[in-house]
Amino acid sequence: MKALVYAAKGQPTLEDRPKPTILNPTDAIVKMVKTTICGTDLHIFKGDVTTCDTGRILGHEGVAVVEQVSDHVGLFKPGDKVIVSCITSCTTCANCRPGMPSHCTDGSLHLAVESASDDAQLMLSDTIPTSYACKIKLGSTVAIVGSGPVGLGALITSQLYSPLQIIVIDLNEKRLATARSLGATHTVVSGPNVVEQVMKITGGRGVDAVLEAVGIPAIFGLCQKLVAVGGTIANLGVHGTKVDLHLETLTKTLVTITTRLVDASSTPMLIKLVESGKIQPDKFATHTFAFKDIEKAYSIFGAAEAHDCLKVVIEF
Amino acid sequence: MKALVYAAKGQPTLEDRPKPTILNPTDAIVKMVKTTICGTDLHIFKGDVTTCDTGRILGHEGVAVVEQVSDHVGLFKPGDKVIVSCITSCTTCANCRPGMPSHCTDGSLHLAVESASDDAQLMLSDTIPTSYACKIKLGSTVAIVGSGPVGLGALITSQLYSPLQIIVIDLNEKRLATARSLGATHTVVSGPNVVEQVMKITGGRGVDAVLEAVGIPAIFGLCQKLVAVGGTIANLGVHGTKVDLHLETLTKTLVTITTRLVDASSTPMLIKLVESGKIQPDKFATHTFAFKDIEKAYSIFGAAEAHDCLKVVIEF
Amino acid sequence: MKALVYAAKGQPTLEDRPKPTILNPTDAIVKMVKTTICGTDLHIFKGDVTTCDTGRILGHEGVAVVEQVSDHVGLFKPGDKVIVSCITSCTTCANCRPGMPSHCTDGSLHLAVESASDDAQLMLSDTIPTSYACKIKLGSTVAIVGSGPVGLGALITSQLYSPLQIIVIDLNEKRLATARSLGATHTVVSGPNVVEQVMKITGGRGVDAVLEAVGIPAIFGLCQKLVAVGGTIANLGVHGTKVDLHLETLTKTLVTITTRLVDASSTPMLIKLVESGKIQPDKFATHTFAFKDIEKAYSIFGAAEAHDCLKVVIEF
Amino acid sequence: MKALVYAAKGQPTLEDRPKPTILNPTDAIVKMVKTTICGTDLHIFKGDVTTCDTGRILGHEGVAVVEQVSDHVGLFKPGDKVIVSCITSCTTCANCRPGMPSHCTDGSLHLAVESASDDAQLMLSDTIPTSYACKIKLGSTVAIVGSGPVGLGALITSQLYSPLQIIVIDLNEKRLATARSLGATHTVVSGPNVVEQVMKITGGRGVDAVLEAVGIPAIFGLCQKLVAVGGTIANLGVHGTKVDLHLETLTKTLVTITTRLVDASSTPMLIKLVESGKIQPDKFATHTFAFKDIEKAYSIFGAAEAHDCLKVVIEF
Repeated sequence: MKALVYAAKGQPTLEDRPKPTILNPTDAIVKMVKTTICGTDLHIFKGDVTTCDTGRILGHEGVAVVEQVSDHVGLFKPGDKVIVSCITSCTTCANCRPGMPSHCTDGSLHLAVESASDDAQLMLSDTIPTSYACKIKLGSTVAIVGSGPVGLGALITSQLYSPLQIIVIDLNEKRLATARSLGATHTVVSGPNVVEQVMKITGGRGVDAVLEAVGIPAIFGLCQKLVAVGGTIANLGVHGTKVDLHLETLTKTLVTITTRLVDASSTPMLIKLVESGKIQPDKFATHTFAFKDIEKAYSIFGAAEAHDCLKVVIEF
Repeated sequence: MKALVYAAKGQPTLEDRPKPTILNPTDAIVKMVKTTICGTDLHIFKGDVTTCDTGRILGHEGVAVVEQVSDHVGLFKPGDKVIVSCITSCTTCANCRPGMPSHCTDGSLHLAVESASDDAQLMLSDTIPTSYACKIKLGSTVAIVGSGPVGLGALITSQLYSPLQIIVIDLNEKRLATARSLGATHTVVSGPNVVEQVMKITGGRGVDAVLEAVGIPAIFGLCQKLVAVGGTIANLGVHGTKVDLHLETLTKTLVTITTRLVDASSTPMLIKLVESGKIQPDKFATHTFAFKDIEKAYSIFGAAEAHDCLKVVIEF
Repeated sequence: MKALVYAAKGQPTLEDRPKPTILNPTDAIVKMVKTTICGTDLHIFKGDVTTCDTGRILGHEGVAVVEQVSDHVGLFKPGDKVIVSCITSCTTCANCRPGMPSHCTDGSLHLAVESASDDAQLMLSDTIPTSYACKIKLGSTVAIVGSGPVGLGALITSQLYSPLQIIVIDLNEKRLATARSLGATHTVVSGPNVVEQVMKITGGRGVDAVLEAVGIPAIFGLCQKLVAVGGTIANLGVHGTKVDLHLETLTKTLVTITTRLVDASSTPMLIKLVESGKIQPDKFATHTFAFKDIEKAYSIFGAAEAHDCLKVVIEF
Repeated sequence: MKALVYAAKGQPTLEDRPKPTILNPTDAIVKMVKTTICGTDLHIFKGDVTTCDTGRILGHEGVAVVEQVSDHVGLFKPGDKVIVSCITSCTTCANCRPGMPSHCTDGSLHLAVESASDDAQLMLSDTIPTSYACKIKLGSTVAIVGSGPVGLGALITSQLYSPLQIIVIDLNEKRLATARSLGATHTVVSGPNVVEQVMKITGGRGVDAVLEAVGIPAIFGLCQKLVAVGGTIANLGVHGTKVDLHLETLTKTLVTITTRLVDASSTPMLIKLVESGKIQPDKFATHTFAFKDIEKAYSIFGAAEAHDCLKVVIEF
C-alpha cells in the first residue's frame, strides 16, 4: 500500500509500505475514506518539529471504515465507519487517568454518524477539537485573532455559548468575509489601529475572551492589549519561540491566560452537534483531491491563502 | 494632626495636616489604633509608583475606631472598632457591579471582632487578602516562590484547602524556617538546582499550583519550570517590567496563568477564619513602634530581612 | 392618582391613592409606561398568599420614566426610561452581601435601552429572570414541563446554552405550537405515556435538565421520572404544598434538585440579550389594554388559556 | 475455599466454593488480607435488597494481595497489595464514559501504599468514598445528621475544606463524643429542640451544607429545617421509601438537594490523604475478628451501637 512519508525536508513523497497487522489487544485496522492535511504537517516538512524524524508516515486525521479489530476490542466491528481522532483520550493510561488526555499515547476512534457528511466529520479529527478552546460566558465579548481553520473553528464553537459580540481580526479580507458568513458580528483588518477599533466596538472595555489563533509573538502581544479587566487570553496558536508577557500592566487586568493541546474528550459531543446541524464544519472543505494527487494537495494547502483554501480533502 | 507624607523621594516625613471632615453620604471618620507599612509604600518612596505624586499622605492598612459617620451610613456607629480595607468592594460602583472590586474607587470598613487581636486583624487590611490568591485543589501540590509577608500569607491560606505538599522557596534560610513553622511541608533554598529538587519532591510531576510572590522576571521564569501539566501559575508579585513567557514549551503544559489585585471581597470570611483561630496572622507582627517613631519603623521595614522583620506594627 | 388594590378576595379594584413622595436617600419616583399582571397577582386575589394583606397596592413589573430622584441617587435622572425589577439586588443590604439577592428588601431600577421595544423590556421585570433557572450544559437535553409564560421563558433562555434537545410538555396543544415556534425541538402532550415518549426521544437515557414550570405535586413527580442519571431537576413552579420525593429510587440517579426565587442579578445581561435580538420576549405580549381597563385585563389573564393569552400589557 | 453466603434471610453462613479462575482479559484474582462488613450487607440479610438473590457471595470491601492476573492486565502483578473498591470506575465502559462511574459494572483495584495501615486502607473500599459527599465551601457551616461510619466519615472529609463549624447530630451520646474527638465543633443530641439548638449555633442562619447520613424520612425532614438560604442538602443515607419535600417553603430557601452513590473516582486522592496522615480512618476499626468468626462479627456489627462498634475488621 502507499503511504505519504516525510522522507526529507521539503516535498512529501508517496512510498510503498506493508499493510498493517494487529499487534496489541486494543488495535484496530481501518481503511481510510477521507483525510486532510494539518498545519502541523507543513511544519514537519519544514523541519520545525524536532521530535519528528524522517521516515515517519504522516497523516493524523480521517474518516475511515474498520477492516479488522483485535479480539478484545468490543466497541467496533468491521464495516463501522469511524472518525480517527488525532490525539486520543483512552481514559485509562497513566496520562489520561489524572486528567491529561492531551498526553494520551494510545489511539482512538469514534463511531461516525450516518446523518452527517464525511467532510463535516473529517473536521472532527483535529480542526474543531483544537479550536474548541475555552468556555465562553453567556453575554460576553470574544475576539479571535487569526481566521485560518483554527480561528474559524473557534468562531463556530464560540457561538454555542451565546456571546454578544465576536470580533475576528486578520489581514486577509476574504477570510474575514468568510468569518462574517460564519457568524462574526464584527471583523477588523489587522493594522496599526486594531486596538482602537476593538475598543470602540466594546465601548472601551476590551474583550472578555481573546483567542490567539496565529502563533507569533506580535499577535500574542496584541491579545494582551485587547483583553478586558477580568478577561481571558486563550492561546490556540502553536508558538516556536518565547513571547513577552506584560505583567507590569496585566497585574491590574486580573487576566487569566490558558494554553492547551487538542484532546479527544469533547469529540463525542462535537459529533452530536454536527449531527444536529448546530455546527457545520463541512464548510471548511474548500478543495478536494484524489489520494494519488496528495502531493498537489500539499502544494495548494502550503499556499492556502493564495488559493482561498481552508482545508483540503483527500479521497481514497 | 500628624500625617506620614510622601514629600520627596527617599525618607518619609511626618507633617501637620487638618483633621478630616465628612464630605459625602457614605463617609466615615476613624481614629487609627494600629497601622503597618506595605511594600508598596517602600516603592512609592523610591519613586517607582508613577501614579503617586509627592504630597500624598501614605498608609492604607489599619485597625481603627469610628469617630463620626455621615447620616446615611447605617452599618457603623461611633465607637465601633473596624478594619480598614486597603482596597474596597463597595459592590455598587461602576467597577464593582460587573465583578471588578479590585478597581473599586470607594473606601470600605469591616467590623472588627472582639475575640481576635488587633495585630491579627491588622493583617486583614492588605497582607492576607493580597496573598489569598487562588483556590488550591484538595490533595494537590503547591509551590510558593518567595517567603516575604505575601508568600507566607499564601502559605497560611493555601492550607485551608488541604493540599498534600506545600513547597516554599527562598534565599533566606530564616524565612524558610518560619515557613516550616507555619506549615510548609518542604522548603528549598534558591539556587541552581531548585527545579531538580522540586521535581524530586513531586515525583517528577512538577507542581499543581505555583505562586509567584516576588515580582522579578527570573522568578516568573522559574515558576514556568516548576508547573505541572494542567497546573496554574498565580502571580502575586508586583512586576515593574515585562517577563518572558515560554509559550513554545507551555503549550504542551496546558497551563493557566492568573494575575490579580487585592480586593476586599474575601475579607468578611477571612475575619471569621481569624476569629475561629483557623488562621493566625498575628505571627507576622514581628516589630512594634509608636507612631512618633514611624520614620524608624520605615527604616527597619526597608531592610526587613536584615532585621528578621516580617511586618511592623505602628501604635497610635 | 389611581392604584390597583387588593381590597378583598376576588375582583381587583381601582382606588384613589396619594402621589408618592421621596422618603429615603435611595428613593426614586417613576411614572409607569407599561405594566403587566403576574400569576402571583392572581394568587393574591384568591387569598393564597398569606403574607399579603388586603389594602396592598398590586403590580410589581413595569417599564417607566423617572420623575424625581433623591439627591443621593446618582445613577438615574428625571426623564430616564427604566425597567422596574420585581425583586431587587441592591448588592449592599444584609441579604444581598452574603449572596441572597432574592431576599433583598430594597427596590431596583435598570436603564432601559432605546433599541428594544417596551413590550420586550417589560418581560424583564419578572417573567424572563424568573424563568432563567439553571445553566444548561452545552450539548445536553432539556425538558420543560409547563408552557405558560415561565415555561416558555425557560425555553427561550435555555437555547442560549445550545442544548441538543428541548422537549416541552403541556396539555394545551396551542401552547405547544407556540413552544415549537419558539425553538422547542420536541413537544409532548401530557398524558399517560409521557414518560415513554420522552424516553424514546432521549434514547432511553432520560433528560439532563428537567424544569418544573407548573407548581403541582403530580408534575414534580413526573419530573423525577424524566430525569437522567446525573441530571438536574430545577423547580420554577410555585408550590402550595409539600410533594413526594422518591429518594428510594433517586439515590441511584445521582440527581441534583434546585429551588429558587427570581432575583435581579441577571437583569443587566438579559437587557443586552434583548438589545442584541438574541432573545425576543416581546412575543409574550399577546393582549394589550389601557390602564382604565385593567380589571378586564385581570379577567382575561385569569382565564389565559381560554383566550390564548400569554401576558397582558397595560398601557398608561 | 470458604465464602460468606446469603443463603437465606437472617443469619449469614460460611459455605465451600471453588477457587476463582481468570475468565476475561481484565480479570485479576486476589487473596484477601482484611475485609469488613457494610450496612448494606445487613440490609441484604434482612431481605431489603430486592436485586440481591439468595446464593450470592457477600463482601465488597477489602485489602488484598494479587495472586494472578490476565495477560492483558498491565497495572498490577502478583504480590501487589491492593485496595478493592466496592464500586468501580473503569473509565471506559458505557456508564463511565459519560460520567456515571457509580454505575460501572467492571471491578477495580488500587495499589495500596506501604506507609499506611491495612485498617486505614480497608476503609477506602467503601466507607470513606461513600461519605465524601459534597464539596464544602471554605468558611461555611456543616451539619451531619447521623454519626455512624458514613456520618463520621463525612466528618473527617468535610474538614479538608476548612468549614468554620461542623455540627454533628445523633441520639447516641458515645458516638457524639467520638464525633468531638474527630473534629466536630458542636454536637447536638437528637430531640424536640434540635432545630432551635442548631439555629442558636449558627446565629439563626441555618446551615450551609446539611448531610443526611441516616436514611429515614423524619431525618430528611429535619434536614429541610436546618438548611440555610442558599444551602445544600446532600443525601448520603440509603432510603427505602419516599420522603416529603416541602417545596412550599423551600422555594424561598434557594436550596440544592443532591443524591449520590459511591464511586471510585476519588479513591486515588483519598489514598494519598491517608498516606500523608491528613485523614486517619483506621480509627473506625473498633473490633477485629478472624475470618472463621465472621458470623460472630456479623452479630456484633448487627448491634453496633450496643457494642460501641463502628466497623469490624475480618482478618484472613
